[in-house]
Amino acid sequence: MSTNRAVAYKGPGKVEVVDIDYPTFELKDGPGVHPDNVGRPLPHAAILKVVTTNICGSDQHMVRGRTTAPEGLVLGHEITGEVVETGPGVEFIQVGDLCSVPFNISCGRCVNCKKGRTEICLNVNPDRPGSAYGYVDMGGWVGGQAEYVLVPYADWNLLRFPDKDQAMDKIMDLTMLSDIFPTGYHGAVTAGVGPGSSVYIAGAGPVGLAAAVGAQLLGAAVVIVADLNAERLKAAEAFGCETVDVSAQDPREGIAKILGVEEVDCGVDAVGFEARGHGHDAKEAPATVLNSLMNVTKAGGSLGIPGLYVTGDPGGIDDAAKEGSLSLRLGLGWAKSLSFTTGQCPVMRYHRPLMEAILHDKVHIADAVNAAAISLDVAPEGYANFDSGVAKKFVLDPHGLTGKVQSVSA
Amino acid sequence: MSTNRAVAYKGPGKVEVVDIDYPTFELKDGPGVHPDNVGRPLPHAAILKVVTTNICGSDQHMVRGRTTAPEGLVLGHEITGEVVETGPGVEFIQVGDLCSVPFNISCGRCVNCKKGRTEICLNVNPDRPGSAYGYVDMGGWVGGQAEYVLVPYADWNLLRFPDKDQAMDKIMDLTMLSDIFPTGYHGAVTAGVGPGSSVYIAGAGPVGLAAAVGAQLLGAAVVIVADLNAERLKAAEAFGCETVDVSAQDPREGIAKILGVEEVDCGVDAVGFEARGHGHDAKEAPATVLNSLMNVTKAGGSLGIPGLYVTGDPGGIDDAAKEGSLSLRLGLGWAKSLSFTTGQCPVMRYHRPLMEAILHDKVHIADAVNAAAISLDVAPEGYANFDSGVAKKFVLDPHGLTGKVQSVSA
Amino acid sequence: MSTNRAVAYKGPGKVEVVDIDYPTFELKDGPGVHPDNVGRPLPHAAILKVVTTNICGSDQHMVRGRTTAPEGLVLGHEITGEVVETGPGVEFIQVGDLCSVPFNISCGRCVNCKKGRTEICLNVNPDRPGSAYGYVDMGGWVGGQAEYVLVPYADWNLLRFPDKDQAMDKIMDLTMLSDIFPTGYHGAVTAGVGPGSSVYIAGAGPVGLAAAVGAQLLGAAVVIVADLNAERLKAAEAFGCETVDVSAQDPREGIAKILGVEEVDCGVDAVGFEARGHGHDAKEAPATVLNSLMNVTKAGGSLGIPGLYVTGDPGGIDDAAKEGSLSLRLGLGWAKSLSFTTGQCPVMRYHRPLMEAILHDKVHIADAVNAAAISLDVAPEGYANFDSGVAKKFVLDPHGLTGKVQSVSA
Amino acid sequence: MSTNRAVAYKGPGKVEVVDIDYPTFELKDGPGVHPDNVGRPLPHAAILKVVTTNICGSDQHMVRGRTTAPEGLVLGHEITGEVVETGPGVEFIQVGDLCSVPFNISCGRCVNCKKGRTEICLNVNPDRPGSAYGYVDMGGWVGGQAEYVLVPYADWNLLRFPDKDQAMDKIMDLTMLSDIFPTGYHGAVTAGVGPGSSVYIAGAGPVGLAAAVGAQLLGAAVVIVADLNAERLKAAEAFGCETVDVSAQDPREGIAKILGVEEVDCGVDAVGFEARGHGHDAKEAPATVLNSLMNVTKAGGSLGIPGLYVTGDPGGIDDAAKEGSLSLRLGLGWAKSLSFTTGQCPVMRYHRPLMEAILHDKVHIADAVNAAAISLDVAPEGYANFDSGVAKKFVLDPHGLTGKVQSVSA
Repeated sequence: MSTNRAVAYKGPGKVEVVDIDYPTFELKDGPGVHPDNVGRPLPHAAILKVVTTNICGSDQHMVRGRTTAPEGLVLGHEITGEVVETGPGVEFIQVGDLCSVPFNISCGRCVNCKKGRTEICLNVNPDRPGSAYGYVDMGGWVGGQAEYVLVPYADWNLLRFPDKDQAMDKIMDLTMLSDIFPTGYHGAVTAGVGPGSSVYIAGAGPVGLAAAVGAQLLGAAVVIVADLNAERLKAAEAFGCETVDVSAQDPREGIAKILGVEEVDCGVDAVGFEARGHGHDAKEAPATVLNSLMNVTKAGGSLGIPGLYVTGDPGGIDDAAKEGSLSLRLGLGWAKSLSFTTGQCPVMRYHRPLMEAILHDKVHIADAVNAAAISLDVAPEGYANFDSGVAKKFVLDPHGLTGKVQSVSA
Repeated sequence: MSTNRAVAYKGPGKVEVVDIDYPTFELKDGPGVHPDNVGRPLPHAAILKVVTTNICGSDQHMVRGRTTAPEGLVLGHEITGEVVETGPGVEFIQVGDLCSVPFNISCGRCVNCKKGRTEICLNVNPDRPGSAYGYVDMGGWVGGQAEYVLVPYADWNLLRFPDKDQAMDKIMDLTMLSDIFPTGYHGAVTAGVGPGSSVYIAGAGPVGLAAAVGAQLLGAAVVIVADLNAERLKAAEAFGCETVDVSAQDPREGIAKILGVEEVDCGVDAVGFEARGHGHDAKEAPATVLNSLMNVTKAGGSLGIPGLYVTGDPGGIDDAAKEGSLSLRLGLGWAKSLSFTTGQCPVMRYHRPLMEAILHDKVHIADAVNAAAISLDVAPEGYANFDSGVAKKFVLDPHGLTGKVQSVSA
Repeated sequence: MSTNRAVAYKGPGKVEVVDIDYPTFELKDGPGVHPDNVGRPLPHAAILKVVTTNICGSDQHMVRGRTTAPEGLVLGHEITGEVVETGPGVEFIQVGDLCSVPFNISCGRCVNCKKGRTEICLNVNPDRPGSAYGYVDMGGWVGGQAEYVLVPYADWNLLRFPDKDQAMDKIMDLTMLSDIFPTGYHGAVTAGVGPGSSVYIAGAGPVGLAAAVGAQLLGAAVVIVADLNAERLKAAEAFGCETVDVSAQDPREGIAKILGVEEVDCGVDAVGFEARGHGHDAKEAPATVLNSLMNVTKAGGSLGIPGLYVTGDPGGIDDAAKEGSLSLRLGLGWAKSLSFTTGQCPVMRYHRPLMEAILHDKVHIADAVNAAAISLDVAPEGYANFDSGVAKKFVLDPHGLTGKVQSVSA
Repeated sequence: MSTNRAVAYKGPGKVEVVDIDYPTFELKDGPGVHPDNVGRPLPHAAILKVVTTNICGSDQHMVRGRTTAPEGLVLGHEITGEVVETGPGVEFIQVGDLCSVPFNISCGRCVNCKKGRTEICLNVNPDRPGSAYGYVDMGGWVGGQAEYVLVPYADWNLLRFPDKDQAMDKIMDLTMLSDIFPTGYHGAVTAGVGPGSSVYIAGAGPVGLAAAVGAQLLGAAVVIVADLNAERLKAAEAFGCETVDVSAQDPREGIAKILGVEEVDCGVDAVGFEARGHGHDAKEAPATVLNSLMNVTKAGGSLGIPGLYVTGDPGGIDDAAKEGSLSLRLGLGWAKSLSFTTGQCPVMRYHRPLMEAILHDKVHIADAVNAAAISLDVAPEGYANFDSGVAKKFVLDPHGLTGKVQSVSA
């Protein structure tokens, strides 16, 4: 009998490695599965042996107890794996294919998917458009921080790597294609980054660093990354970014020291709703980042907002925050003719070109985000360590296939 | 000696027709003129005999005392006129040309103008990017609710009508090209309206109605206009729009009655910062419109926001409003992957194609907004009447050239 | 036992109504079926009872013997029908749905489909990207001028009409969604048509007239249609187009009479490779239309080229034409900075918004192209009649469901 | 009295350094000046002391006698210089500014300039839209291969470098902003190049190499450059391009060796009308490049065509070529749904971001094209040398300001 071990949320501040069922071509009931999805047949799905699966900052929101995630929810939406079984409706993906899985689950049949808006697929989440693996209020698709995972609509969702050996050589880079590389890149794209741009990225966590790499790939002239965390800023400097330490420096002044002017062409919010204010001992202040970006972006600029904002935040600092409302200085934004793009990144729009960039050595995303492979067993340690603010991106390797597993504190 | 009569702001609630200087090819000191603009030579300018000049809702913000406009400020940024004199630097525009003047003043030489972003020209307003005639904090360019007005950078700014007689026949339509028709249309364009779209426009004032006409021109399948004012809703119905009376009806329910679903493809905010809440006896509630639009727009949609939001509002309902901050439900917008475009409309991007649409009888904007020509002398009455919420757009005719002058209450 | 009657090509100049097999969920061998497609399982397909299926100008190319179409090929790629059976892999489309079928067959799984480029799907035609029903060298998918037809990848391909009764009321309009309305509209879109544009459309056949309707929907100020055929020009005038009779008039002169200038903003080639020269008794001259469009389109304009050009034309006028080469005045096009967009229309990009435009009475495409329903039995007469140049679009009604069947010569 | 020395065309195969008038703020009669431009007042102009001015491949077309250029025409449209005098209508550009001059002359007042289409300005060339310095049939603006040159509409046309010392350090890179860098980049942009793209560039002359640099800046995964000239191919390899030697190799085969597939995503024609066929001892064959690009570009791709095609070519190989007609395999292009963008590059759209990329060390265009500074006096040698096919880009330095002057054969 097949077994499957996985990382589950067990209450605020607590994750555990547990035994779960091996996937089947039907969505079974379980923690967080929407009633309308229970028993859903999945002949179009593939089962993947997970090669790598990363811990994401947005997993942390659940683990910190900032959401209504149910106990027992299997986590993980950043998945790369090898196909070991396909349903009867799968025609093009084959057993043995090594593939990246977009974190957005999408059907490939609805009006939004047909427009490439896979982040708001209408057919996978009974609650609202859009879904993801292992995530609260997303329909109940089982997470991928596991040995095996099921991917529905496999012909549509999976990105097959053209050469398996070559891909395993670059697996620490390719594993970033499931979420953070496209997500950061989407931030840069929707901020209007192109050749010659100056870019200010709020947040030097993995998404912020990925946005910085994305901005460089798009030809930006100057990429400035801002954070309160000195270690993370050092990571940004390591691959050619300029930095502003907002614990010590006003953003406009920091920018002026670098550029000679106080404003940039493009702004990216890679922080989201758990933003803290600027300055020493800054407290949580959810509108800080967006208001700051409006302040530092030139008139006519665009703001890419891949950082997560939520419809409800039980742990929010006040009533407004609890329902996802922010006090935004829209009057300033309006006077500057700014544009704003929000929402999940539609990974499928970007993962193939970014894969080509990786395979042809145009970017080194794993180095940029300081990717570290660890075993599935130590995932709880990895969560705790990442939450402490280390400048690392943990990649779980459930089967030891990367050959790069190290200890969490390595 | 040349004379010039004009409409001036004389304090909260008060406008008067006054005598002012005839324009010269230099920006002279006067109410609201920025010190850095005093004495600015204007060899590139043209002087226009004003044929029509409209009262705008944004003029009302000043007249209501919601801004820091100085007493004596000559009002008026919606100008159409005949060139009577040109500076030595004017090469292509000629005396006798009948022209529309974009309300945004722009230089045609800066980096923003070169990108078509004339609404944020860098060279006309010492305070910040972007300018307009007769407006507070916009550099001090003299307003055009006058017999004569100066237009700087005439070769760049002016749109010449190809045939004067034809243009005079359609002057009540063409007069809308200086501001509200492009502004409303920009709202529709930035909301992503195209053939087959369903559109919800908040606000049935002149800009909202212009947005509705613009949406129809762009091929929208259904245009829904919402307001608290029954008379203005009737105006929208008169040219084929559906309506929602938000004093009596929840927007989503109102939409559902029309479309069968509670959401639209595209949302336009044609109200701005003086928004009131929904329902009977609604109070001013500046975030109402934007929060409502996020609620009624489908996931993946775009919001066009031509309605004015300001950086400072001395008469705001609370401290946040006074500095132009709004409590926006961004978490909801993010979950729906919405995009937002703010700012002044760059009129020059649109005025020529919209002129063609008018001249070839594809739109009848004057009828849609219920344009009414009145004499310059009764401008104060026009302001008062418009402020009371009548469904009219007043067009001042300083020289009686339209042949259509009526009384304010006609 | 189910039966199925269909229109088949029986050699140059000859079509017949024949008995064919009822569709099965496997692609069986037959005339024109590519060996690699024989036996292809189709669990994702739906079988439709054909409600309407139109004769297309591109069918005529085959019937005239201008291609290598095999005898017995079942024709027809403009299909609207009701789903009567679905394969085991169909999840969202249901029996009873009334649907439009895009003429391009696409898989919804390949890299091109994911980008919305369904006209060059990689998985349906072993010979090259892109496919269509009932067409030579397109993989061998059985045509839809029949009582019943199979549609592969039904969840992806089919556009369900929201209300069956409403749809049957407008069925003569909706039947144009499978090909000519999107195809003509694509020509207008890729020619850059928008509000205020002046447009010149070469060809007043059904695609040209559909391009004209599309240009109007896109807000064009002036739509000019050119042809050698007076009856077809009259059809264009009937819905508000201007016309140029190129048998009698030079195109630039014709345009000048209408616009006052000799050039337009946008050009559409709705003719293709069987173009004839201009003037009285014009002979076939395949480069005429494109060279003429370069001549009449303003510098900076775009040419939309939905008219079909082929890689091989056994009946071509010379060796160059036989291999699809044209003597184009590219030097002129280059000097004018023109752009050119060629290829099949990706119907799926447009059919839903155009359906909304039809359902909300924004366009009346059936009237514009003079749609005429005829019974399947008289299809051969319909072909002959259409080939003679009548200004009609024949719609086969195999089951008499439209209630509008008339005689061919009505 | 001011003097001015310049490079003039003196008949087929012959250029000379001659004395010409120092520029004045009026366009005086002279070789090639259009009668309607004679006496044109230019108060908006600036006079530049030329710092660098490059020899361009398109100059060679004239020098080879392939055009109707008049004897005495002063050549040169690639100009960088310091402003030494400004007309009375110049407001923002100041004496002492070091500036790049777009080779397209444009007015900044016409409808095309307002849309950023400066390559087809309506007000500078009485013959047709678009102009350039020192070029046949372009209105007669005096060329810039001279000590001093006049630039009309200086506030509009000139790109000021932000720091003169920094600019002089990078002057060999910045001098490419006036034409070939934007021109090559435009080819890449209009070919649809972006992150992850594979690109095939026909032609390894300076424009082809600039297109390659541009493609890299845009994030291309693989850039393949093709030519018949081994030395030029070596230049492409030197900065990371792959190459195909079309004198020895079929393009599709060459691509397959590099990519594993025979087609690329994007194609650029950096050759133009003087194309030669492929293979050993290839003869001039003007359609070769475009037909080859259609062959090697994937279905759905775009072709950027910065290579010059002309309306008349007295030296063309046959009657068709003499009038700028090419036998293009459009049937193939159509079957592959290709798009084509032709015309001069609108330099102003790109020069500022590309300047930023140079100033921030993101590209090294001078190295890529092997820029070599030579004195004005040896321009004739430079022309001859470049025409022989050396892999060099000659930069004339009339005042010895670059400090890098070398001999032609260095």
